[in-house]
Amino acid sequence: MSRNRVLVTGISGFIGRHVVAPLLQRGFEIHGLSSGPPAPATDDRIRMHQANLLQSGAPAAAISAIKPSHLLHLAWTQSTARMHLVLDNVAWARASLALFQAFAEQGGRRAVFAGSCAEYDWDYSLLIEDITPSRPRSIYGTCKNAVREIVQSASPSADVSAAWARIFYLYGPHEPPGRLVSDVAAAIATGRAVELTHGLQERDYLHVADAAEALAALLASDAAGTINVASGTAIPIRRIAEILALHANRADLLSFGRRPSPAGDPPRLVGDITRLRREIDFVPHHQLEDGLVATLKWWTHHLAPTEMPANTNR
Amino acid sequence: MSRNRVLVTGISGFIGRHVVAPLLQRGFEIHGLSSGPPAPATDDRIRMHQANLLQSGAPAAAISAIKPSHLLHLAWTQSTARMHLVLDNVAWARASLALFQAFAEQGGRRAVFAGSCAEYDWDYSLLIEDITPSRPRSIYGTCKNAVREIVQSASPSADVSAAWARIFYLYGPHEPPGRLVSDVAAAIATGRAVELTHGLQERDYLHVADAAEALAALLASDAAGTINVASGTAIPIRRIAEILALHANRADLLSFGRRPSPAGDPPRLVGDITRLRREIDFVPHHQLEDGLVATLKWWTHHLAPTEMPANTNR
Repeated sequence: MSRNRVLVTGISGFIGRHVVAPLLQRGFEIHGLSSGPPAPATDDRIRMHQANLLQSGAPAAAISAIKPSHLLHLAWTQSTARMHLVLDNVAWARASLALFQAFAEQGGRRAVFAGSCAEYDWDYSLLIEDITPSRPRSIYGTCKNAVREIVQSASPSADVSAAWARIFYLYGPHEPPGRLVSDVAAAIATGRAVELTHGLQERDYLHVADAAEALAALLASDAAGTINVASGTAIPIRRIAEILALHANRADLLSFGRRPSPAGDPPRLVGDITRLRREIDFVPHHQLEDGLVATLKWWTHHLAPTEMPANTNR
Repeated sequence: MSRNRVLVTGISGFIGRHVVAPLLQRGFEIHGLSSGPPAPATDDRIRMHQANLLQSGAPAAAISAIKPSHLLHLAWTQSTARMHLVLDNVAWARASLALFQAFAEQGGRRAVFAGSCAEYDWDYSLLIEDITPSRPRSIYGTCKNAVREIVQSASPSADVSAAWARIFYLYGPHEPPGRLVSDVAAAIATGRAVELTHGLQERDYLHVADAAEALAALLASDAAGTINVASGTAIPIRRIAEILALHANRADLLSFGRRPSPAGDPPRLVGDITRLRREIDFVPHHQLEDGLVATLKWWTHHLAPTEMPANTNR
């Protein structure tokens, strides 16, 4: 077995696309798993494998074929809409356990799993690993947290070093639609009005490339247990929308207070990043305002050929 | 789909053997699943199916073949020794989720899962559903509890009525070796000495036939959520060994204090049975002393042909 061969699930996804560079930089031999048709690798230093992890036997078959020493498990049900489909989440919990089991059985040494800040009890605003209680509200958070409990309980005896990254709110290129930054940036990029809640909720936002950098560093380390991947700073989501709109000089497109907040929407969520700083010496590269402006540019460029009429100067 | 067709996993196991009668009594059409070779059904009113639920695709295939309206999921890793093998427990968690997913997808309506008192925080002695915290110490309790979290979170949207039975300490015929009553009764039945801890730990013991009766009643009800299956009374395990030995007039075989208690062994564990009484009107049939004496007789009869020399009068 190669000593630095990593299997990255969900490599074509939002985080997965950004994790290739920092993994290569750390000398990993990258094997990417994607459920889509055998797409050309985005980088010829990646070996791509096609597999639908939800198919019975697929996780064990992938591990057998690749024999990874390292595992970075990012894949989960895709769109934000599907994240609420309960049986999809159950299926991903099952597939994640199958992947972990096969990885451990076949001698895998180091694994990092993508968890979520949705595993925490959101009655608290300061979310600290091993201190703030876990009490997920959603089926998504429940399934992630249940897999975490099993992985963390089983890893020591299974001789796998495992870290569980609780990833907070992300933004950046390739973000799926249906989220704050992707929806607001796409609206502004195409000149459409966008209706928002009051926007006073404070959330902890990190650039996806910073999160990917943290995950790669975490994989290369031997830090174990739960670790927040966050900025450590909360910002009102209203401010995020405003940064995007003001940069394009289109504050007129934003209508705050036109959509109701979800019932029980927590006023503030911020991740404590003491562990992230101490154990992997992580410092984000992207300052929020610059990162948002760059993301807006990406959306503007990305949406231009398909969604904007070709012959206008709008 | 038949409206009262139940799939019972682990039907050849300790609880499974005892659950057939109370299910038949309630008019269920029983389909039993067993991983062993196609054994003759213990009752010709049971249809037996052979499947190893740990094999990829086996849970979904079983549900497809049987199309049950009801599910009683008792199967888990078998022996007490294997209960500590971490990856066995991970595999059973995965298989249980696959079973639940397939059951829900194919229109199953009512499911009862075998959980465990090992899901509770044993720093408490009184274990009450939804009040005493869940904080399993073992990989067994962790995996059971994680499956419970997912099943309970997913069931309402998946349109499955689900109850999670937290089963306490059981005794009775067919108990696997390696547990208190099976080991002490087998020793006494064969005239062997047995070394015990101090035996002052109080535990909640229920006859397996009573537990099976409760599970069948639970399946036929629509009680949802977590429900203790227990006697509601704790007894020092020393007293249990003494009842068995005194009945055989072999108190000389017991040596208390000769084995160390496990580190952190809780002094007292007792299940609150308010829900069990109220929601399914359950009353145990077996008084502990009578049940233990009957169990000792079963062991004596059961062990006679194989373990006792045929021509002695010992």
